[in-house]
Amino acid sequence: MESAVFLIQCTDQKGIVAKISDFVFRYDGNIIQSDQYTTDPANGQFFMRVEFCFDPLIVSKSHLEDEFSILARTLNAQWNIHYINKKYRMGILVSKQDHCLIDTLYHWKCRELNVEIAFVISNHNSVSEIVKHYNVPFYYMPIDPKDKKKQEIEILNLVKNETDFLVLARYMQVLTEDFLKEYRKDVINIHHSFLPSFKGANPYRQAYERGVKVIGATAHFITDELDEGPIIEQVVERVSHRENVEALMRKGKNLEQLALSNALRTYTEHRVIRYRNKTIVFG
Amino acid sequence: MESAVFLIQCTDQKGIVAKISDFVFRYDGNIIQSDQYTTDPANGQFFMRVEFCFDPLIVSKSHLEDEFSILARTLNAQWNIHYINKKYRMGILVSKQDHCLIDTLYHWKCRELNVEIAFVISNHNSVSEIVKHYNVPFYYMPIDPKDKKKQEIEILNLVKNETDFLVLARYMQVLTEDFLKEYRKDVINIHHSFLPSFKGANPYRQAYERGVKVIGATAHFITDELDEGPIIEQVVERVSHRENVEALMRKGKNLEQLALSNALRTYTEHRVIRYRNKTIVFG
Amino acid sequence: MESAVFLIQCTDQKGIVAKISDFVFRYDGNIIQSDQYTTDPANGQFFMRVEFCFDPLIVSKSHLEDEFSILARTLNAQWNIHYINKKYRMGILVSKQDHCLIDTLYHWKCRELNVEIAFVISNHNSVSEIVKHYNVPFYYMPIDPKDKKKQEIEILNLVKNETDFLVLARYMQVLTEDFLKEYRKDVINIHHSFLPSFKGANPYRQAYERGVKVIGATAHFITDELDEGPIIEQVVERVSHRENVEALMRKGKNLEQLALSNALRTYTEHRVIRYRNKTIVFG
Amino acid sequence: MESAVFLIQCTDQKGIVAKISDFVFRYDGNIIQSDQYTTDPANGQFFMRVEFCFDPLIVSKSHLEDEFSILARTLNAQWNIHYINKKYRMGILVSKQDHCLIDTLYHWKCRELNVEIAFVISNHNSVSEIVKHYNVPFYYMPIDPKDKKKQEIEILNLVKNETDFLVLARYMQVLTEDFLKEYRKDVINIHHSFLPSFKGANPYRQAYERGVKVIGATAHFITDELDEGPIIEQVVERVSHRENVEALMRKGKNLEQLALSNALRTYTEHRVIRYRNKTIVFG
Repeated sequence: MESAVFLIQCTDQKGIVAKISDFVFRYDGNIIQSDQYTTDPANGQFFMRVEFCFDPLIVSKSHLEDEFSILARTLNAQWNIHYINKKYRMGILVSKQDHCLIDTLYHWKCRELNVEIAFVISNHNSVSEIVKHYNVPFYYMPIDPKDKKKQEIEILNLVKNETDFLVLARYMQVLTEDFLKEYRKDVINIHHSFLPSFKGANPYRQAYERGVKVIGATAHFITDELDEGPIIEQVVERVSHRENVEALMRKGKNLEQLALSNALRTYTEHRVIRYRNKTIVFG
Repeated sequence: MESAVFLIQCTDQKGIVAKISDFVFRYDGNIIQSDQYTTDPANGQFFMRVEFCFDPLIVSKSHLEDEFSILARTLNAQWNIHYINKKYRMGILVSKQDHCLIDTLYHWKCRELNVEIAFVISNHNSVSEIVKHYNVPFYYMPIDPKDKKKQEIEILNLVKNETDFLVLARYMQVLTEDFLKEYRKDVINIHHSFLPSFKGANPYRQAYERGVKVIGATAHFITDELDEGPIIEQVVERVSHRENVEALMRKGKNLEQLALSNALRTYTEHRVIRYRNKTIVFG
Repeated sequence: MESAVFLIQCTDQKGIVAKISDFVFRYDGNIIQSDQYTTDPANGQFFMRVEFCFDPLIVSKSHLEDEFSILARTLNAQWNIHYINKKYRMGILVSKQDHCLIDTLYHWKCRELNVEIAFVISNHNSVSEIVKHYNVPFYYMPIDPKDKKKQEIEILNLVKNETDFLVLARYMQVLTEDFLKEYRKDVINIHHSFLPSFKGANPYRQAYERGVKVIGATAHFITDELDEGPIIEQVVERVSHRENVEALMRKGKNLEQLALSNALRTYTEHRVIRYRNKTIVFG
Repeated sequence: MESAVFLIQCTDQKGIVAKISDFVFRYDGNIIQSDQYTTDPANGQFFMRVEFCFDPLIVSKSHLEDEFSILARTLNAQWNIHYINKKYRMGILVSKQDHCLIDTLYHWKCRELNVEIAFVISNHNSVSEIVKHYNVPFYYMPIDPKDKKKQEIEILNLVKNETDFLVLARYMQVLTEDFLKEYRKDVINIHHSFLPSFKGANPYRQAYERGVKVIGATAHFITDELDEGPIIEQVVERVSHRENVEALMRKGKNLEQLALSNALRTYTEHRVIRYRNKTIVFG
């Protein structure tokens, strides 16, 4: 038996759930979990995630996909299929701050993250030792201040074919529009504030200056606009006037780890659908 | 168009989702929200909630129910149908503490609670004025210390046919096994602790004595065993050594209101299924 | 015996705590709670709250104040004294949304808020009945669209001498700079977002459009700049893609009540000190 | 300049704060933070934490301590002094589950935990590698099933003089009364439930069986009674019916890390006072 996930989106119409669940049933599959969401009961956009198991000896993957594409065409639906056994290959980019990196490596090692880690890339060499401890390939790619573009192209060449998505686990460089256009796949970032508050640099200092009573961290997809991409997960915690910038940074580390690890788990379990500038995250 | 909810439970088997969603489709219904849950992918118990709209001019309610009962029999399923327009009739029991009562009346008046309030019953007269302010019938049923049973029978006579369920909004009397056996319908209680901690009397004092750093409130179904029934909702909040019993009680009031109002909303939206000593609460 | 609170702020210097606690001791007072905070151990700003009881038969209030002002001068400190028995007189402004009003009235009636309510003012008549239920004076002051200023002056005339501070319990008009300059005392507002995100109108719609996974409410002092004043309290809660604007508004009501009631309690217990654009809130 | 913390407890009496803060002032110290708490305004127990800096060239530590002991005697107070530069020596005991160990090592390495780690002891060898990665001494002390006592004595011999306190970072053996009597210093444990719910073995299974909607973790001092010692910190998170025992365990790991790291930070900053079966934790 093999497990797979359909992610489907189309205009809402009568009978979609019936057609899709019937499809699984006809190919002798068993639905493990099924979730759907419609933006608006009247004429909205419809989203569905169906996790099911099937016997590839009874129905081959290619046959399943061919048949589903016929159904999808009648629904005018966009769709993907993900096989649980075929893990995503994730590339990690990181700078000096290593708490999100370490947390991600740890969850991966505990098999709490269904992913292969292709490699870790950093513009600093300081994280190399812990990466090697986890037996993950490490690439040190420092930035040439005279030619910043060079390093980005180096990264692109490495990640383009070797990864299914990237995670910026506190990577303190802004990826250019060109990079994103070339890479084309998802890039997940952890931003150390409760977006849309405190975009850009030094969000903990901004939070301190504004005197907020709650701080947060946000995992989101990267888009061309800095810190404006679709939000996957946010985690928050109370603070008081006693906490200075350093205390906020310390407390924030745990929030960043938690927001990123939640986002990576739902993403790698194929529970996240992007739609316009938002996400549907199925539980 | 009319909206309805199926709540279904049976042993897991292939094709259930397909059969049920196809059923809705065949009767020209449109699924608004569909949720399902299986306790265990292999041979577990299956639960489903399907919210859909249909045209009673095309298919009558009785026909819909007759036809669905045939399908249900083939699945060996227990099921209910709830029509959104047909509101539950709720009876409220309360003693002196009126914060949960007032919060419930307020949400009801704002149409945030899809329910009819049949009446409020209290063993104290002090809440009568606020109940009348909301134009809800009020019954003062004091307890005769020489014959406690008498008042319970009085309540039973009133609620038995006039309500679909009861809510104990800080009613400080324990309903007897006899009452529950006779009433037979759901009774929802708000307990002022984070169950299973601090069952029984004076939970805030118990919490204070134990020195916990977080307190809570629990909305649950009443069963024969005191404070042991299926939990619907729990809400918690941090406390410190500074908070004495009175401070915990004050803070707890908000938790009790929140836990109860969340539980009542999900229950009256037919999102709650009882199974053994637990609940499935569909989001 | 009588209870009082000193709120003190000055440049940090050696021996302040000793001098102030010795002062209380010399006048035969007993410190109930003492809190202090320094922005920066080296040369920062010092803040202190001392709650103590004393016998006015041994030392009169005016003598206590005269003597303390001598000490304060040597410390170059700003200070206030608040007597617990002398309740603040609070004026409430509200529009149509009455959930914060009702919650405030309820806490006040339960003696959980050490305040006198001078009156409730609204530009709508719809809340009059519930205000009367609580036996609080109500003033209906509609806005003349041709001369908005008129109503504001009417409010000012009423509140100026009759209140110690104002609370905007979902008052949907922006008070002008002139009003604030004339009134001069504190005005506390509840804003229905997690500031600084989503300032201005329709914050729940803004939150929905941005696709945040956590919403919040903020109680803050009003200043000339809209939604930029010092934050007293913030409360947050998780939301999902399923929650549309109406669901966010419903969930947000509880957050607004909680943020405002926490802010009002700490403020009326004289635990809040404003400093630049921030607050120190002693626990 | 040197920093130190006084922790003081005695029966409440007039002038304590004045006397203690005056003491610091007389020895030319500067109070950095001062907190106090009285269990009951009338005749309660008084607790105080004073963090201050002083110049050891002006007043020697031994002189400071001698003088303070004279003052303490007049107050009939118990007290300790802790010098910030003199770090606590912490011994860590752990079994197979290494998430709390790793988190503790990480915070220590980042200098977010003002402590020396004397060594890590485990009854399993599997954690040795990560401990060595952090350059901390590791002792593998397996349990002889025929003579469990032997290993405990081995541990005792090692920790007795070499540590100021112990932390059980998911150490799955119960320390005997004899051990605690001999060791005499504090032992901090992380229990993987929201105590007092679910004491003893398999708390996540217990939580699953009871169907709670919130789970938690508790850091507490060990006493003779299993899971009944004074609570230092508790952290909680919502769960749903969908989460099986494994999912609760995974989610719980983060709660355990957070509860333990908060407890260790406050404890090593000398913010925790034990009193009867409770803790005062100064912020």
